[in-house]
Amino acid sequence: MTATKATPTKHDDESAIRELVDGWLAATKNGDLDTVMTLMADDVIFMVPGKEPFGKEEFAAQSKQMKNVKIEGKSDIKEIEVLGDRAWIRNYLQILITEPDGKTTQRSGYTLTILRKNPDGNWVVARDANLVM
Amino acid sequence: MTATKATPTKHDDESAIRELVDGWLAATKNGDLDTVMTLMADDVIFMVPGKEPFGKEEFAAQSKQMKNVKIEGKSDIKEIEVLGDRAWIRNYLQILITEPDGKTTQRSGYTLTILRKNPDGNWVVARDANLVM
Repeated sequence: MTATKATPTKHDDESAIRELVDGWLAATKNGDLDTVMTLMADDVIFMVPGKEPFGKEEFAAQSKQMKNVKIEGKSDIKEIEVLGDRAWIRNYLQILITEPDGKTTQRSGYTLTILRKNPDGNWVVARDANLVM
Repeated sequence: MTATKATPTKHDDESAIRELVDGWLAATKNGDLDTVMTLMADDVIFMVPGKEPFGKEEFAAQSKQMKNVKIEGKSDIKEIEVLGDRAWIRNYLQILITEPDGKTTQRSGYTLTILRKNPDGNWVVARDANLVM
């Protein structure tokens, strides 16, 4: 007899985390804040240069302020390590920002992110240090 | 009978990590680069805003260039999570930089750091995203 349902492997978790990152960028591009919000922990903390860390509510408020701005991101995950129901990734992001008047800005940089696997098996972003400038 | 030698607990690991951070700042203040170098993994990666990630050799080179600059840091560890032989901390740093001519600069900000426990039981910094500006 062989097992018909396997316990998730590290490889499965890595794939799920890669899908999370892709899903985040796709939802951001589509302006789909509701989906992005499902991809972060309720107690998520975002850290960016030059301001105080902020959480889910401020993330949503900032996103709503930028709802007419198109944000297209490309991700290149440099490292990923799964540690049971936690993981961290080091990611290189390239961001193309298009203002309502068509003006574009490019930014790039690295992120270091702690992820958590929820009891339902879904991975979410828990802590994010974003050095994109 | 009671156990005379216990396996390290999460609490012990947390204490060791706090000592690592304190030791790092003390050695930095004293210009003791050799000690700082023992507190990081050989494959350490440092990430700071606006430049490419760098490793141990470049860290040492930068420190040697600043050997006449006094760097006094104060740390306030906001979060620490131990995951077996890995851990992460979110730290708030306040840095006072004193140039050889006595000119001082203050900087502050957050770091998100991944640590690793070596087979010898010592914790070292493995990945560090530094948002101090």
